Amino acid sequence: MLQSGSMKLSELGEFGLIDLICNIINKSKNLEVPSWRQVLLGIGDDAAAWLNDNQTQLATIDSLVQDVHFDLNIVTWEELGWKALAVNLSDIAAMGGVPQYALISLALPPDIEVENIDKFYTSTTQLAEEFGVAVVGGDIVASPNVVITIAVLGYSKGRAILKRSTACPGEQIAVTGYLGLSAGGLEMLKSGVSLDSEATSILKHGHLQPMPRIREGQILAGLGVRTAIDISDGLIADLNHICEASKVGARIKINIIIY
Amino acid sequence: MLQSGSMKLSELGEFGLIDLICNIINKSKNLEVPSWRQVLLGIGDDAAAWLNDNQTQLATIDSLVQDVHFDLNIVTWEELGWKALAVNLSDIAAMGGVPQYALISLALPPDIEVENIDKFYTSTTQLAEEFGVAVVGGDIVASPNVVITIAVLGYSKGRAILKRSTACPGEQIAVTGYLGLSAGGLEMLKSGVSLDSEATSILKHGHLQPMPRIREGQILAGLGVRTAIDISDGLIADLNHICEASKVGARIKINIIIY
Repeated sequence: MLQSGSMKLSELGEFGLIDLICNIINKSKNLEVPSWRQVLLGIGDDAAAWLNDNQTQLATIDSLVQDVHFDLNIVTWEELGWKALAVNLSDIAAMGGVPQYALISLALPPDIEVENIDKFYTSTTQLAEEFGVAVVGGDIVASPNVVITIAVLGYSKGRAILKRSTACPGEQIAVTGYLGLSAGGLEMLKSGVSLDSEATSILKHGHLQPMPRIREGQILAGLGVRTAIDISDGLIADLNHICEASKVGARIKINIIIY
Repeated sequence: MLQSGSMKLSELGEFGLIDLICNIINKSKNLEVPSWRQVLLGIGDDAAAWLNDNQTQLATIDSLVQDVHFDLNIVTWEELGWKALAVNLSDIAAMGGVPQYALISLALPPDIEVENIDKFYTSTTQLAEEFGVAVVGGDIVASPNVVITIAVLGYSKGRAILKRSTACPGEQIAVTGYLGLSAGGLEMLKSGVSLDSEATSILKHGHLQPMPRIREGQILAGLGVRTAIDISDGLIADLNHICEASKVGARIKINIIIY
């Protein structure tokens, strides 16, 4: 890939940058090195996967940045603790895997109240408990803004993992849950629009307390499904990632139901 | 632990915060959960450790924050790529472990030049190659400032790992390499003081391109040494961490050599 020396990341775009990084890493790949020989999936899917003593290990990392991914005027620290782990668990779910261990790195401004960190960790460990995850490591550093990075490690029962690159013509497309709840919830919270209490609760939870589809992922992998992706950019964008990785097309028919 | 509701992190301090987080995590520890039952070392040492099919797995995570841990006016992107991985490899070295896989999460402002990310990853993968590490995963997010978080996974040959909590009275204290090179290098670079070319090179490398003591850690663990720590805060501060974890004291005799 050719770049002019002064091109900015904003001009290259997210996917151009991912391509650039994949190229450098693929060049460094060396099959004489034991670690590389065991790799089943590197950068480019929801989680990395490698073989370890006949078990497929899974690992994923995600960062949430203040004022990019969350607004401390809208989200509580409990909700943030939940969401930061949930986005990682969703990556393991999208592989059909079992999450086991979490490492948490917090970059925090010195004027944050201690109480908030208590709330964050209490909520994170609560979600961790729900899925049998042990929080085993971490790092705390000073920072002008809040950045939360979590890495989650897990494994896959058997060797079946759900990938982006395995879709075939003729297969059905399905989603778990409802689409658009997170974006709808953010819009509702930002605009301050008032909806009935049921809609408010569903949209708020969709944005702030998403439930990782861990069991669903495992059931799908166990039933022989081979392809999945964690939806984060919306159905069209993420289905497109599957199509590109699998070199297939897709057709979506919309039934509009008028109440 | 009791806190007043409005206490700030800056008042609590780094070690108070670590205590707070350890307390929450220890409360969430549940030995009925398989992941927790396998944990050998949780938060509080240089890396986490757990048993997996009779192998001891190791994991560590570290963040470097712009203008807290590095200054883009002083450090090049090659040096940053090296250092960000090196600090994690040093944590695995301090356990006597073998590093295997790295996950890299970069939070980047949109006006960073593409060329710099190329330099960063080229340098990171070069250091990874040197120690047989495969870079398998990552995340890229937008951010007002640069934050680099790397997680490294590895294992320990046999079951011996070097801990902070195993020091006994009568044991010797030893360090690998020379103390103070990183702090000295930073001071030299910030102050702009001019030293002879050999001293300049040694101090600069000490600060910007530290070499993780992977082989040294493995040799020590193999020889039956049971205690180690990655020095990051200086000999006195980090020896104190060993003393506290091991409930021992230490005595250092200084021979001042006058040239």
